[in-house]
Amino acid sequence: MSILLTNDDGIYAEGLGVLFGEMQELGECAIVAPETEQSAVGHAITIYRPLMVRKAGKGGRFLGYAVRGTPADCVKIGVKELLPKPVELVVSGINVGANVGINVLYSGTVSAATEAAILGISSIAVSLDTKSGGVDFSFAARFTKKLAGLVMKHEFLRRVPLNVNVPALPESEIRGIVVTRQGNARLVEEFEQRLDPRGNIYYWLAGETLLPETDDIESDACALRRGFVTVTPIQHDLTRHGAVDGVREALADLVDS
Amino acid sequence: MSILLTNDDGIYAEGLGVLFGEMQELGECAIVAPETEQSAVGHAITIYRPLMVRKAGKGGRFLGYAVRGTPADCVKIGVKELLPKPVELVVSGINVGANVGINVLYSGTVSAATEAAILGISSIAVSLDTKSGGVDFSFAARFTKKLAGLVMKHEFLRRVPLNVNVPALPESEIRGIVVTRQGNARLVEEFEQRLDPRGNIYYWLAGETLLPETDDIESDACALRRGFVTVTPIQHDLTRHGAVDGVREALADLVDS
Repeated sequence: MSILLTNDDGIYAEGLGVLFGEMQELGECAIVAPETEQSAVGHAITIYRPLMVRKAGKGGRFLGYAVRGTPADCVKIGVKELLPKPVELVVSGINVGANVGINVLYSGTVSAATEAAILGISSIAVSLDTKSGGVDFSFAARFTKKLAGLVMKHEFLRRVPLNVNVPALPESEIRGIVVTRQGNARLVEEFEQRLDPRGNIYYWLAGETLLPETDDIESDACALRRGFVTVTPIQHDLTRHGAVDGVREALADLVDS
Repeated sequence: MSILLTNDDGIYAEGLGVLFGEMQELGECAIVAPETEQSAVGHAITIYRPLMVRKAGKGGRFLGYAVRGTPADCVKIGVKELLPKPVELVVSGINVGANVGINVLYSGTVSAATEAAILGISSIAVSLDTKSGGVDFSFAARFTKKLAGLVMKHEFLRRVPLNVNVPALPESEIRGIVVTRQGNARLVEEFEQRLDPRGNIYYWLAGETLLPETDDIESDACALRRGFVTVTPIQHDLTRHGAVDGVREALADLVDS
């Protein structure tokens, strides 16, 4: 099996390295990852400037392709151009920081899995619920390998990109695995205004994500917070299907005029 | 009514200017737009560097706030920080180029409307189906004003962000207005490999979007191609709800182990 590994933390990120170590047991792994950290790039792609790609090494050995672009770029160019064999599985991660609730929309990690799905390739995005590096990625990597093995054996799962989040807990404290939905989490954001040394105003985005009061085990954010590994099937149809008829009715005047 | 206007083509883009001219009849309009073209940024936001904001002018008058960031950044900082009054409506556009089918996912124009929805604000994204500037934005702008007026009078529509696409046709040739869904359109992409003057390899993303064979009037791409204005209600829940039970069943072994 030919597996493409990517992430949004950059090609030298520890989470990607640990994932690579585990996933090699499952198939032939190639890394195509951003040259530099690309967090919060969402589903950005690079079309108005060329993509620079270089072969990156580590410890004197070939590590993978470093792309001056986004995670979605990496998947596109890896699949279409860089890898010699047809890619059967894309795994993106292991991200430092959960991708649950509203944050999924901003996630470069998840967008790599979505891009794979657009290209018709099975995919998994994996994130660890921690705010800093220097944590133990090994359980998340082992779990991903196990999940990937199941996905590739199962015709239905092969067609559903999965967004996986793992609590940053010792394995013994993980309470289980649940299949979830993208939960509602309120963003409380503020901009901090500052002055640069030349007196120009600039702003930092600050703030945090607040969980809703309800403790819904079907919500990715809530389940993760309670110590469960969450697995959310994702898609890339942004239509609000439930509102189509309502909008049609509400716009009847406009359509008739 | 306080209206925030933005786009992904940059603060000086003609489509935004024409939109501003029309929308002023509807309420108090403020422009908060990217300093430079931001196409294909998707739902990227800027969190690892500060946002520079400057007051931009045109013809000696204040035009709006130019933000060194993405359309989603512009909406966030406009709503939270820059505009003195609570924003009631965000309109993003008029984009040069349609945002239909799979392209919606990569669209900075649409992400501005989505960001507004996340913040609880009514929103409309508008794109003109043309590949170049120098076209007539006036019908698209007048239509947007009319639609925005309806949206703000209708409790249901106020809660549904709308992705609008307008054919680049004379008004007399527009066949009507239809409420659509994000259609399936196949992307046929290729990377062109080139060498820079120093012998380094780089790549350009090339290719095009192909419409499916079927001519489905409910598909945004197909209806637009046939000469209709398309209005697609959008949302930001990426859960593949229809697959949740199936994934749960397929992963039963993993959950039990």
